[in-house]
Amino acid sequence: MPQGQPEYVPDDGLTTRQRRVRPLLMVHTGPGKGKSTAAFGMALRAWNQGWPIGVFQFVKSAKWRIGEERALTVLGESGQGGSVTWHKMGEGWSWIQRPGTEADHAADAREGWRQIQRDLTAQTYRFYVLDEFTYPLKWGWIDVDEVLTTLAERPGNQHVVITGRDADPRLIEAADLVTEMGKVKHPMDAGQKGQKGIEW
Amino acid sequence: MPQGQPEYVPDDGLTTRQRRVRPLLMVHTGPGKGKSTAAFGMALRAWNQGWPIGVFQFVKSAKWRIGEERALTVLGESGQGGSVTWHKMGEGWSWIQRPGTEADHAADAREGWRQIQRDLTAQTYRFYVLDEFTYPLKWGWIDVDEVLTTLAERPGNQHVVITGRDADPRLIEAADLVTEMGKVKHPMDAGQKGQKGIEW
Repeated sequence: MPQGQPEYVPDDGLTTRQRRVRPLLMVHTGPGKGKSTAAFGMALRAWNQGWPIGVFQFVKSAKWRIGEERALTVLGESGQGGSVTWHKMGEGWSWIQRPGTEADHAADAREGWRQIQRDLTAQTYRFYVLDEFTYPLKWGWIDVDEVLTTLAERPGNQHVVITGRDADPRLIEAADLVTEMGKVKHPMDAGQKGQKGIEW
Repeated sequence: MPQGQPEYVPDDGLTTRQRRVRPLLMVHTGPGKGKSTAAFGMALRAWNQGWPIGVFQFVKSAKWRIGEERALTVLGESGQGGSVTWHKMGEGWSWIQRPGTEADHAADAREGWRQIQRDLTAQTYRFYVLDEFTYPLKWGWIDVDEVLTTLAERPGNQHVVITGRDADPRLIEAADLVTEMGKVKHPMDAGQKGQKGIEW
């Protein structure tokens, strides 16, 4: 809930406008629901500003995010806001946990990260969703320090939101905005299976 | 992150399919960001299922949610998913905190709640976003027990998500899914003002 006024004005030599347009690194982490969902909700605002949006989906099931993908694709094609480009692991760099295939999945994840690096350098997008990106970091597939360096050196005014559980402490330290989604109650705890329109 | 399998199968006499289509009451609360944003992200999935969506915006500034409203309006008008109907307090039942006007705002909020009651009874929508609805409950403008009764007795298969800080314990108890958004770090703590495309 934005209150409109910061708690204090920092002595950093920047004007309010300069601070206002600062590119943000945002992290949605924690065990609860809503991490990715809130990131896609943010993408609606980015779209409304006319910003090019890049989604990089580091998830493990093709069923996930189909609603979000279709909605953002329709928005991108409407010509009434920003463009939307959707990069999906399921097409070229997906991973499904199969014994003996972890090495390939690591390579796939790194390939996705290389694309992100290229896009950040080229300023291809204004708003990036790195969906479930904490996992390849956690599993050591992608080097956290390399990610932090790339993000710290990204040119221009590119906002990045990273989602997933167990965000690395260094990533949290580097982020401008961190929200921890806590699980208070979940239907699956009561034997409820996932259902269409809610989980996907 | 849906895991696909519930932890146990409840002895409730329902089939998996019956449990699967159970209408859900969801609450996004806590001091962190992403409560409403995640609710609007969920609306993308509902839209993709072709469900009629009703948004009831109990917020205090007309600037808020303009990105979400425009995106969901474009989606609703695309004819490629569900319809979207957006009820805004700013048009008829808004409140801005001005001394001496609290009574009117309470009446405005109650008027919005009456519309929600009518729509739930008529099954007007399949997915409801009651945005920032915890506040009129907290302030005593709308009776919590009446809300719980209406929700418990709602017919058919209508999903409802309620957002806002300080959700009433009775609401949390009644909900099927509760996520607490915790604030770990926020740019406004560092003197950053809200910026377009991010906060609105």
